[in-house]
Amino acid sequence: MNRHLISAGDLSKDDALLILDTAEELARVSERSIKKLPTLRGRTVVNLFFEDSTRTRISFEAAAKRLSADVINFSAKGSSVSKGESLKDTALTLEAMGADAVVIRHGSSGAPHRLANWVHGSVVNAGDGTHEHPTQALLDAFSMRRRLGALDGRKVTIVGDVLHSRVARSNVLLLHTLGAEVTLVAPPTLLPVSVHTWPCEVSYDLDTVLAKSDVVMMLRVQKERMNAAYFPSEREYSRRYGLDRARFAKMPDDAIVMHPGPMNRGMEIAAEVADSSRSTIVEQVANGVTIRMAVLYLLLGGETA
Amino acid sequence: MNRHLISAGDLSKDDALLILDTAEELARVSERSIKKLPTLRGRTVVNLFFEDSTRTRISFEAAAKRLSADVINFSAKGSSVSKGESLKDTALTLEAMGADAVVIRHGSSGAPHRLANWVHGSVVNAGDGTHEHPTQALLDAFSMRRRLGALDGRKVTIVGDVLHSRVARSNVLLLHTLGAEVTLVAPPTLLPVSVHTWPCEVSYDLDTVLAKSDVVMMLRVQKERMNAAYFPSEREYSRRYGLDRARFAKMPDDAIVMHPGPMNRGMEIAAEVADSSRSTIVEQVANGVTIRMAVLYLLLGGETA
Amino acid sequence: MNRHLISAGDLSKDDALLILDTAEELARVSERSIKKLPTLRGRTVVNLFFEDSTRTRISFEAAAKRLSADVINFSAKGSSVSKGESLKDTALTLEAMGADAVVIRHGSSGAPHRLANWVHGSVVNAGDGTHEHPTQALLDAFSMRRRLGALDGRKVTIVGDVLHSRVARSNVLLLHTLGAEVTLVAPPTLLPVSVHTWPCEVSYDLDTVLAKSDVVMMLRVQKERMNAAYFPSEREYSRRYGLDRARFAKMPDDAIVMHPGPMNRGMEIAAEVADSSRSTIVEQVANGVTIRMAVLYLLLGGETA
Repeated sequence: MNRHLISAGDLSKDDALLILDTAEELARVSERSIKKLPTLRGRTVVNLFFEDSTRTRISFEAAAKRLSADVINFSAKGSSVSKGESLKDTALTLEAMGADAVVIRHGSSGAPHRLANWVHGSVVNAGDGTHEHPTQALLDAFSMRRRLGALDGRKVTIVGDVLHSRVARSNVLLLHTLGAEVTLVAPPTLLPVSVHTWPCEVSYDLDTVLAKSDVVMMLRVQKERMNAAYFPSEREYSRRYGLDRARFAKMPDDAIVMHPGPMNRGMEIAAEVADSSRSTIVEQVANGVTIRMAVLYLLLGGETA
Repeated sequence: MNRHLISAGDLSKDDALLILDTAEELARVSERSIKKLPTLRGRTVVNLFFEDSTRTRISFEAAAKRLSADVINFSAKGSSVSKGESLKDTALTLEAMGADAVVIRHGSSGAPHRLANWVHGSVVNAGDGTHEHPTQALLDAFSMRRRLGALDGRKVTIVGDVLHSRVARSNVLLLHTLGAEVTLVAPPTLLPVSVHTWPCEVSYDLDTVLAKSDVVMMLRVQKERMNAAYFPSEREYSRRYGLDRARFAKMPDDAIVMHPGPMNRGMEIAAEVADSSRSTIVEQVANGVTIRMAVLYLLLGGETA
Repeated sequence: MNRHLISAGDLSKDDALLILDTAEELARVSERSIKKLPTLRGRTVVNLFFEDSTRTRISFEAAAKRLSADVINFSAKGSSVSKGESLKDTALTLEAMGADAVVIRHGSSGAPHRLANWVHGSVVNAGDGTHEHPTQALLDAFSMRRRLGALDGRKVTIVGDVLHSRVARSNVLLLHTLGAEVTLVAPPTLLPVSVHTWPCEVSYDLDTVLAKSDVVMMLRVQKERMNAAYFPSEREYSRRYGLDRARFAKMPDDAIVMHPGPMNRGMEIAAEVADSSRSTIVEQVANGVTIRMAVLYLLLGGETA
């Protein structure tokens, strides 16, 4: 496996399966109430967050601590970064301080890739601009596999603001690698121009697609975008693209519902759908910690402590 | 004992004594210079703070770390919570991430109670609105007991802004359970309407009460309230309700002075009173860590690691 | 050695050499890939930061964690400190909570000294106003010694805004103790009035001094000061005091270039100079963690755990 995890598209099928299988083993260890492993004792993981994302930061922090790594949180706000220090100097500084892995969340697409050129440690992309969020795609795939078994030939529908979603992009790339068939459903204004080059189908009609989906993944609507010119009215969006009770009833009986969180209950997803036993939303959070443990373990575990 | 610690009023006398006795044992271990116990290794304690309170957060953090738990700090500011995520979704997220206990500070009375309905782990109330702050009451009782012995029949006077004080309410409930006799002293505008239903006496005349008190607990005056219509002038407040040198001299020779901190020296308490050997103010801070160790130990210690 | 580290000027030559030698041993342990030592297990180090300084905070945090201490970060923003709590009460609170060492960064010169009067634990000055930053001077001396050997008789030139620089002051004091000869180069408006009492030379002419320097240390220009009346224009400053390629060529072949970071590339230092093999800038960061380990080890290691 590569030394970094920058893009879901970089993962071969073997890489992806190795991560999922490792996560499966870690999940079983955890189910035996063994919560802490000594694997990464003496290693330092730095969470370098240029954007606030408490959920993702905590998930990586919990994952690293369960492997006994030391965790240092570096929020770029109020730091020398905000005084104009370059990303390169920040990277060299963190490496010099002994960071074995840098988990980076950054507003600019490509920042993790640039970071990886400058450091000898591992870089894990925790979300860069509208580009990628590979551990989210991995935890989603892991959640699907735990519910449905192998993903080859599975039909996954992703619904919502694909244009601004790194989650959608990473999922399309990874699910394609794993043999699933992805259909994106979104208003035309919320699809990227390049979507025809992505390895997936596109539809504007949610109701038709639902009936043949094994998985329906709702994307989060970002409140700050709702008033933008390219965005349908809230009412219109919810009516055409929201997963309400009636639409949920059209899905096959064993199909599951996913959402990366945090949800806007009543907007893109009805509360009763979110809380149904066929929703994996809470599992996705737990699986997020497990997948991040697997990623850190595979990236860092090989070195001597 | 209950799985949660939401209200001092939920504690039976046996519960309260068990916590105090456990804290006493932990204090003795600590006095033998054994600062770190392996008891909660592998457990995760999340500090979920919707209001800034560095002192309380650090006290819980130190307590959890001395028991070898992993601690994750979650400040609601700048998180998805501030983007409108519900408390329920936050709770489910933290639990899914593996939180064994959630220590919550929230501006709304009742938030910890609601949280406890949604999670399987333990919830510890670290202050909710003007409602309760049970570990503060426990550390106060512990501090009194270490100085004065058993609390049955002890006369405790609590002075100040009872209306806005979760400390006062939790203390009244716990001290009553432990058999002490509490008198509240405050200007009428700083007493809650419901105070006649509380298990305590009320007086407007500090000087009369002082002479028969075993304990005088001064409440913090919140600067932001000093200019409110219901608040006496600063000068008037200090003159009538401040514990200055002259009033201190009226107290019995073995009576002690308490304050939950941070103090306004010269306002509700004179500097020389705060620093006297009969003041427990610094001990209260140390006892706070010990009591929180005891609470986390009792709530979490029974599970297998 | 003293129980605290407040000023580089407090260190005797023996103290300073002990710290440097201890750091040398720790660096060698680390080079054998042993990243974590159990030395300070059970000890608590509090980072009490009244000013943002992510780099310094992280460096101390990494150092303490590599020695297995527990670390609690206390940012004064939003804490009771910002509600008017006195430094003394904060200090007593931290000590009562079990802090074995307090690492303090404060905007007022002298704050660490005052803190040391109130606590029994160790105080480490991580920068106070324009006064001192002793661990920076120690890591600089350590970086010089690793490159050049013993410092007796070495010629060190420090260039830039000495007036506002605690780094310059601490370096002058420590380097003098260690037997080096320091020359400060700065525009007259950026030198303190008292500079003639410092144990060093002063020059306004960088080019003359460069040719006989073993070490050239460039100080950071603080952007917020560039528009002040006492500050030369940016262009003028860079032209007269910047270390560009031409000036770098005038230095002896084995002389080294230092900078405490974060740099303004192109302002006080050219990018190619900063990245040259004779620049110690990245090493300084790594050495910072090592020196802070040595300081914490020497201040705290003697007590029983």
